[in-house]
Amino acid sequence: MKLTFPTISGSVTAPRGFRAAGVGCDIKELGTGKGSEKGRKRDLAVIASDTAAAVAGMFTTNQVCAAPVLVSRARAARARAQAIVANSGNANACTGARGWRDAESMTRMVAARLGIPDRRVLVCSTGRIGLRLPMARVEAGIEAACGCLEAGPEGARNAAEAILTSDTRCKEYAVEFRLHRLTVRLGGIAKGAGMIEPALSPSGRRPASQPMHATMLAMLTTDAAVRPAVLKRALREAVAQSFNRITIDGDMSTNDAVILLANGKAGNPEIERLESSSGKTFQAALNQVTLELAKMMVRDGEGVSRVVTLRIHGARTFADADAAARAVGNSQLVKTSWCGGDPNWGRIMDALGYSAARVEPDKVDIAYARSGERRLLYAARKGCATGTSLEDLAEITRLPEFDLHIHLHLGMCQATLYASDLTEAYVDYNKGE
Amino acid sequence: MKLTFPTISGSVTAPRGFRAAGVGCDIKELGTGKGSEKGRKRDLAVIASDTAAAVAGMFTTNQVCAAPVLVSRARAARARAQAIVANSGNANACTGARGWRDAESMTRMVAARLGIPDRRVLVCSTGRIGLRLPMARVEAGIEAACGCLEAGPEGARNAAEAILTSDTRCKEYAVEFRLHRLTVRLGGIAKGAGMIEPALSPSGRRPASQPMHATMLAMLTTDAAVRPAVLKRALREAVAQSFNRITIDGDMSTNDAVILLANGKAGNPEIERLESSSGKTFQAALNQVTLELAKMMVRDGEGVSRVVTLRIHGARTFADADAAARAVGNSQLVKTSWCGGDPNWGRIMDALGYSAARVEPDKVDIAYARSGERRLLYAARKGCATGTSLEDLAEITRLPEFDLHIHLHLGMCQATLYASDLTEAYVDYNKGE
Repeated sequence: MKLTFPTISGSVTAPRGFRAAGVGCDIKELGTGKGSEKGRKRDLAVIASDTAAAVAGMFTTNQVCAAPVLVSRARAARARAQAIVANSGNANACTGARGWRDAESMTRMVAARLGIPDRRVLVCSTGRIGLRLPMARVEAGIEAACGCLEAGPEGARNAAEAILTSDTRCKEYAVEFRLHRLTVRLGGIAKGAGMIEPALSPSGRRPASQPMHATMLAMLTTDAAVRPAVLKRALREAVAQSFNRITIDGDMSTNDAVILLANGKAGNPEIERLESSSGKTFQAALNQVTLELAKMMVRDGEGVSRVVTLRIHGARTFADADAAARAVGNSQLVKTSWCGGDPNWGRIMDALGYSAARVEPDKVDIAYARSGERRLLYAARKGCATGTSLEDLAEITRLPEFDLHIHLHLGMCQATLYASDLTEAYVDYNKGE
Repeated sequence: MKLTFPTISGSVTAPRGFRAAGVGCDIKELGTGKGSEKGRKRDLAVIASDTAAAVAGMFTTNQVCAAPVLVSRARAARARAQAIVANSGNANACTGARGWRDAESMTRMVAARLGIPDRRVLVCSTGRIGLRLPMARVEAGIEAACGCLEAGPEGARNAAEAILTSDTRCKEYAVEFRLHRLTVRLGGIAKGAGMIEPALSPSGRRPASQPMHATMLAMLTTDAAVRPAVLKRALREAVAQSFNRITIDGDMSTNDAVILLANGKAGNPEIERLESSSGKTFQAALNQVTLELAKMMVRDGEGVSRVVTLRIHGARTFADADAAARAVGNSQLVKTSWCGGDPNWGRIMDALGYSAARVEPDKVDIAYARSGERRLLYAARKGCATGTSLEDLAEITRLPEFDLHIHLHLGMCQATLYASDLTEAYVDYNKGE
């Protein structure tokens, strides 16, 4: 995708009328077992709009979904919300009825502090599964965060830091665009790293032809005025081409959530249809922000040393294209060959063959390209080796990012997946204490 | 499973009237890139019956299936066969029409040397995908192997060695049992290690509720007299509870094959029904041999440090039980936690939740047990932590083999999967040159 809109700093506080804060309240120390070598780590974020905003949300379709997902999903189905509270270090998943009460309490604490109704606050959690939240610490954190909300980039950066778990860096992005000659801004923060192959939907029902396999969190803000129903549709479309198109380890999390608040402070006439000129512009901006945040997640995935943009062409159906992409992008053997920079196309053929997609081996073409380049280097044509030297292929597959094109020659459908390699560092990180 | 029948030595040559050989002809040197540090490695095996035998075969259901699979599948559909030729170091997969001719040539060479019809010879290959077989070397190997076929355990051991790729040790097993007061023997050799999650069927059509995801090869021989149609049914049943119940990396190979020859030299009245007393005894013996060979594969999987017997109880349907088992057994995060001996049941809940199986989180129980023991240590009940200390759980999960019991409490169906951990050694081995 070409980057249509100029980027600006400030992420979630770039749009007018939003404030953010991120503080440390020692949830991480308890939850992750990873300690806090360098003193207290930020682990609680609050993002708030000065006024009620249109809201949209997409959440994990995992049947085992965390308490904060249940609470936020119901509230994102309404028209308006005003604040988001999020913690890292503890997922508040598999915590039963108590977990649900804890998630609700978090929203109540924020609501009380900001003087808004509970139902206008959404909540997200990420971290270890199966542990109860240390509510006294959480309460102190909420108190502190609500006390230092700020409209500048510092607050957004602190919030971006507070939602990180195994991520090595903050993920922030914002763009500026024009609607009716007015300047409009849209920004977001996100976290990813492991347990990443989201399949998000607004309702908990899996999207059609979607994987059955992240904790990924993304909080998005805009000062555009958008009708709530239109905002929900726009987010669904944006997620379908961004967060639902990435995989790190094929493990869909219990806590995935993407939340978008649109407070209308830009003063544009409310967007009532995505098919309108303003609607299209808004969608394009939202697509850019979500895709760039999604790619940042893959690049910063646990132990990731290579990012592969996998494009399936010529599938019979989109479901086939998707299934083929996910079989290749989640194959342990394909991913380890990427780790070594090895252009082992035989393993790709193997994964295509066992995917749920219809494949005719003697029609399959496999080619590599430098990231975003059109010049393809074919490894296989019609299912057999082309004779291109391994050395030439490896010149591409040893790059930190490259494109993999697979043509099935069975139809007109295509799919893209942003995938990563499987490294010793991933295993080392995740094998526990 | 209790081991009902006593084991004997000699594997494929334990039954009367079978001879075997394994030789080195330098296919491995060319194919695997792993070199042959300690001189020439065995890479070509021949197993032959003195007389025509009833035959049964089960083959990969990968759409991208190797030329030898196509050739052998057609021949295993017939009533009788007499010999098997197998090579390691080169899979003869993704080699087009030339590959098919090469596979047929291999059977012709063996047939000519043994003086039997081509159609009575089956062929298997395993190794790197996408390379043409070095046919001059293969021919020299077949010549040498057919020249040194022997009925003693030495020949069987050499054949078992010749089919290995990344395996670290030979896999041989044989049992002795009685039918109508006659001594009958059944034995086999196998190889596994990586690209292992077989879904074998006789026809290439996937078995119902089977994975869509090994090269595993197994050659089985018996001197029992069994009607060919009955032999095929017995093998299908045996594979369903053994080779189709293992996973190492979730990657189903292009070359998986299990072949069984029954030459009747024991002199028992031909088994005409599996429901008969002889039929049941034969099935039990075949089940024991295939399950023990399957477990050897998992234990010797690439980089495997832990073997987990995963038992799903209380699923609504068998398909659900199977889907739940495979989601857990193939989850990168669950497998890496096993690598560290970490009893991280939250990741297990997560994988259950994204599986295609129906799961109600607040009904799920998760327990660990020492291998084969009935005493369960519960990590979670009704989807929440039990309070059992991590230290107590880790005493089990740090063992080289343990059992994991998951009860969904939604129905009466169950499934077992023999799974393994994901280690740095797996990644290191597979990342290529």
